[in-house]
Amino acid sequence: MLTNDQLNQWDREHFLHASTHFAQHARGESATRIVTTADGVHIEDRDGNRFLDAFAGLYCVNVGYGRTEIAEAIAKQAHELAYYHSYVGHGTEASITLAHMVAERAPAHMNRVYFGLSGSDANETNVKLVWYYWNVKGRPEKRKIISRWRGYHGSGLVTGSLTGLTPFHAKFGLPMAEVVHTEAPYYFRRPRRDMSEAEFTAHCAAELEALIEREGADNIGAFIGEPILGTGGIVPPPAGYWEAIQPILKKHDILLIADEVVTGFGRLGTMMGSTHYGITPDIITIAKGLTSAYAPLSGSIVSDGVFKVLEEGTDKFGPFGHGWTYSAHPIGAAAGVANLKLVDDLGLVQNSRETGAYFQNALRERLGSHRFVGDVRGEGLMAAVELQRDPDAGTDFDAADKTTAQVVGAMAKHGVIARAMPQGEIIGFAPPLCITPAEVDKVADVTAQALEDVTGAL
Amino acid sequence: MLTNDQLNQWDREHFLHASTHFAQHARGESATRIVTTADGVHIEDRDGNRFLDAFAGLYCVNVGYGRTEIAEAIAKQAHELAYYHSYVGHGTEASITLAHMVAERAPAHMNRVYFGLSGSDANETNVKLVWYYWNVKGRPEKRKIISRWRGYHGSGLVTGSLTGLTPFHAKFGLPMAEVVHTEAPYYFRRPRRDMSEAEFTAHCAAELEALIEREGADNIGAFIGEPILGTGGIVPPPAGYWEAIQPILKKHDILLIADEVVTGFGRLGTMMGSTHYGITPDIITIAKGLTSAYAPLSGSIVSDGVFKVLEEGTDKFGPFGHGWTYSAHPIGAAAGVANLKLVDDLGLVQNSRETGAYFQNALRERLGSHRFVGDVRGEGLMAAVELQRDPDAGTDFDAADKTTAQVVGAMAKHGVIARAMPQGEIIGFAPPLCITPAEVDKVADVTAQALEDVTGAL
Repeated sequence: MLTNDQLNQWDREHFLHASTHFAQHARGESATRIVTTADGVHIEDRDGNRFLDAFAGLYCVNVGYGRTEIAEAIAKQAHELAYYHSYVGHGTEASITLAHMVAERAPAHMNRVYFGLSGSDANETNVKLVWYYWNVKGRPEKRKIISRWRGYHGSGLVTGSLTGLTPFHAKFGLPMAEVVHTEAPYYFRRPRRDMSEAEFTAHCAAELEALIEREGADNIGAFIGEPILGTGGIVPPPAGYWEAIQPILKKHDILLIADEVVTGFGRLGTMMGSTHYGITPDIITIAKGLTSAYAPLSGSIVSDGVFKVLEEGTDKFGPFGHGWTYSAHPIGAAAGVANLKLVDDLGLVQNSRETGAYFQNALRERLGSHRFVGDVRGEGLMAAVELQRDPDAGTDFDAADKTTAQVVGAMAKHGVIARAMPQGEIIGFAPPLCITPAEVDKVADVTAQALEDVTGAL
Repeated sequence: MLTNDQLNQWDREHFLHASTHFAQHARGESATRIVTTADGVHIEDRDGNRFLDAFAGLYCVNVGYGRTEIAEAIAKQAHELAYYHSYVGHGTEASITLAHMVAERAPAHMNRVYFGLSGSDANETNVKLVWYYWNVKGRPEKRKIISRWRGYHGSGLVTGSLTGLTPFHAKFGLPMAEVVHTEAPYYFRRPRRDMSEAEFTAHCAAELEALIEREGADNIGAFIGEPILGTGGIVPPPAGYWEAIQPILKKHDILLIADEVVTGFGRLGTMMGSTHYGITPDIITIAKGLTSAYAPLSGSIVSDGVFKVLEEGTDKFGPFGHGWTYSAHPIGAAAGVANLKLVDDLGLVQNSRETGAYFQNALRERLGSHRFVGDVRGEGLMAAVELQRDPDAGTDFDAADKTTAQVVGAMAKHGVIARAMPQGEIIGFAPPLCITPAEVDKVADVTAQALEDVTGAL
C-alpha cells in the first residue's frame, strides 16, 4: 500500500484538481484530502477523519454512500460487458431499461432521452438540439440562449457561459456571444426592499420581456433555467415565477430547457422539479441523481413536440450527427437502473419531502434570528443560510474576510461538511436523500455552533 | 429477464442513440443491436451473433474486452467508495496514482493532468486553459483556435466546431466563430496529383502561414491537431509535416494542443503519438486508451511551461474556476490504473507496433491493387482502406450509393466489425491492441471478401 507521504507528493506534483488554487496546492499550502470509504451520509478519509456529508458530494449522492445494490450492479456489468458504444441503434439491456425508467419518471409529454456523462455535456447536447430544431424549422437565426444570472449549467465554454456566475467567467473571456442573461429570481436580493414577492416576480417577467425585445425574439432559440437556483445560491423562485415566465416564452416561440441536474429524482421532495413548480419544459437536463454519482451518466429528455422535429430533421437530412464515445456507457446505465430502483424501494422521494420539511424548519429555528444570518431558505433537501454583516441594514460581509469559508471550515472540525457556495456568503446544504431527522438536527446544531465559533455571536 | 421484444419496443420508444436516424429508428426501419458480453477482440449480441470487433468499440477498448483485472478494480472501488468529488484538493488513492502514471507516460516536459470524462470535455478544458493562459499573459485577444479540416476533436459546440467534418456541422450552425480551419494533411487528397509528399507538406505549412496572416497572430491562441487524423479518415501525416508546422506555431506564439484521444497509450505502436511524430505539445488530450473505455475518463496533460502560467494566474486571481462533478471519478480512476498496468504487463504497445506492421502489410497485400481501392494507409493498429470508382482516373463513388456502408455491412455478415468513416468512402480499422496476426489476417480476408460481395470485383 502506498504511504500517505507518497500520495501527498504525487498529488502536488501531478494532479490538477477542480476549482483549486493550483499554485498553493503545488506548494503544499492547501490540504490534500484522500477519501477512502463512505456509508450512508458519512465519508471517511485516509487520516481517519469521519464526516457527515451534508452536501452529498456535490449534491449528487442522493441514495447515500456505500449502497451494495449499486456496487453489485456495477460489478456485474463490468464483468459481463464493461463497454460497447451506443451509436446507430446499439445498446445494452441496462441502457434500454434505463431509457424506459427515465421516461416513466419524466413529465407525461416527455418520452425520449439522449444519454451523456455530465450535466455540462447534457447541456451541450441541449444547445445542439435547440440549434438543430430551429434549423429544421427553417429559422436558423433563432440561436441565442437566455439564461439567468446565478444560474448554473456547467463549466464548459458555452455551458460555462450559460452559468451566470463570475468565478466561472472571469479570466476565461466568458460568456460567449450566443448567451444572454436575465434577472436572477432571487427575492432576497430584490432591487427594492419593499417589493412583495408578487411585485418581484412581475419585475423578473418584465426584465425578460425587455431582454427579448432588445435581442429580438427571432434571434432567441431557448431559455434555460433550474427549477430552483442551485450553485448560484440555492434559491427557490419567488411565488408565481414559473407561471409568469412560461407564457412569455410561449408567446415568442422560445424553447424552455429545465436544468434538473440537481433537482431531478427527488431532491425537492418530488420526482422532478418541473412537476414541483408546474413547469412544462421542451427539454430536461438530468445527471447527478440519475446514478447518485456511482458512475458518470447524464441525459437530455426531450418532449414529444421536440421529437417530432427531430424525426422531420432526420427524414430530411439523415442521421443526427452527435455522439459521445461514452454515451449510455454500460456501467453508468447499470448504476442508473439500480439507483432509480433504490430511490423507489427506500421511499427516498417521500423522505426528501418529509425530512426536508423538518430540516428547513430546524435551520430556521436554530439560525433564523442569528444576528449575522440574512436569510434561511430552501425546498426539500436543498437549503441555504445566507450570512450578512447587518441583516437589518442589509449590509454584506466583505468578501475578503471569507466568513462563509471560515464557518464551513469550523463545521468540518465538528464533523459536518457543508458547502461555501462560490458567489456570495452562502452556506449550502444538500444531504443524501436518506438522511434522518436526528442527522439533520446535528447539521443544524453544528452550523449554529460553527457560526458562534467564527463570529463569537450566539 | 426482459424479452427481446420488450427491449426492442422500449428502445424505439425512449432511446435517442448517438449518430442515429431518429425517425427510421423509431419506425423500426433500422436495426437494434443489444450487446451482451465480450472477450478479447470479440463481442456477442442478444441474438447469439459473435463478431471480431476490428474497431475496438470506437477505437477505445485497447486492452480488449473482458479483462477481469479491470472489472475487479472497478468492483473493488465501487464497493469501497464509488464517488467523492475531486474539488479543492480532494482525491482518492486511485486518482492520485493515475495522475502519477499519466505523467510517467507523457513526454518529459509534461507533468500535470486535469481529469475529465470524455475527449470532448477534455478539449473544452483545453480551450479554457488556452483562454485563461492568454488572459494571465495579458493578451486576452489571443482567442481563436486553429484546427484542420478532417480533424476530430469532439461533438460539442466548440469542440464540434474544432472537428472539421461536415456531418458534425451541418444543421447545427457550426463551426462557431472562435474556430478557423486549415488544410487537412491528407496526401491522398492533395490539390495536385503530381505533388510529392515534401511539396504537399510545404503546401500545408504555407496554408497555415497564410491563415495566421489573415486572422492575425495576435488573435490566435492555439492550434489543435491529432498526430494522425482519426475520424476524419485515419490519415498519417505526410513526411515532415509536424517538423514543418511546429516552428510556425512557435514563431507566432501559438500554443499546440495534441489531441491524443485515439493515439494515446499505444495505438501507433508507441506510448504516445506525440513521441511517435516528434511533436512537443503544450497540452495533450487523452481519453479512450486511458481506461480502454471500461469507465469514462479523460485528461488534459499540461506542459511545465503552461503550468507555470497557471500558477501565476491562481496566485494573482485565486482558484481556477473550472470543474466537472465527475472530474477524476473514482471508478474511472481505478479502471485507469488497472488498464495502464495491463498495457504494460501484456506488452501491448509492442504488440501494437509488431502486429500493426503485420496488419498494414496484410491490408496492402490483399487490397492494395483491388480495382476499387484508391488508398491503403495507416500506422500501428490504425488503418484505412479508401474506396474509389476509378483510382487511376481519381474518380470517386457517388456518396448516395453508400458503397462503404454496404461493404462494412457485408463484413458484419462475415463476422467482422469495421467502421464506415463518417465522411468519404473510407473503411476504418482500429482493433484492440491485443489482436493476433491470425486475427488481423481474418480481418484483411473478410474485407477483401466483402468488397467482392458488394462490387463483384475480386
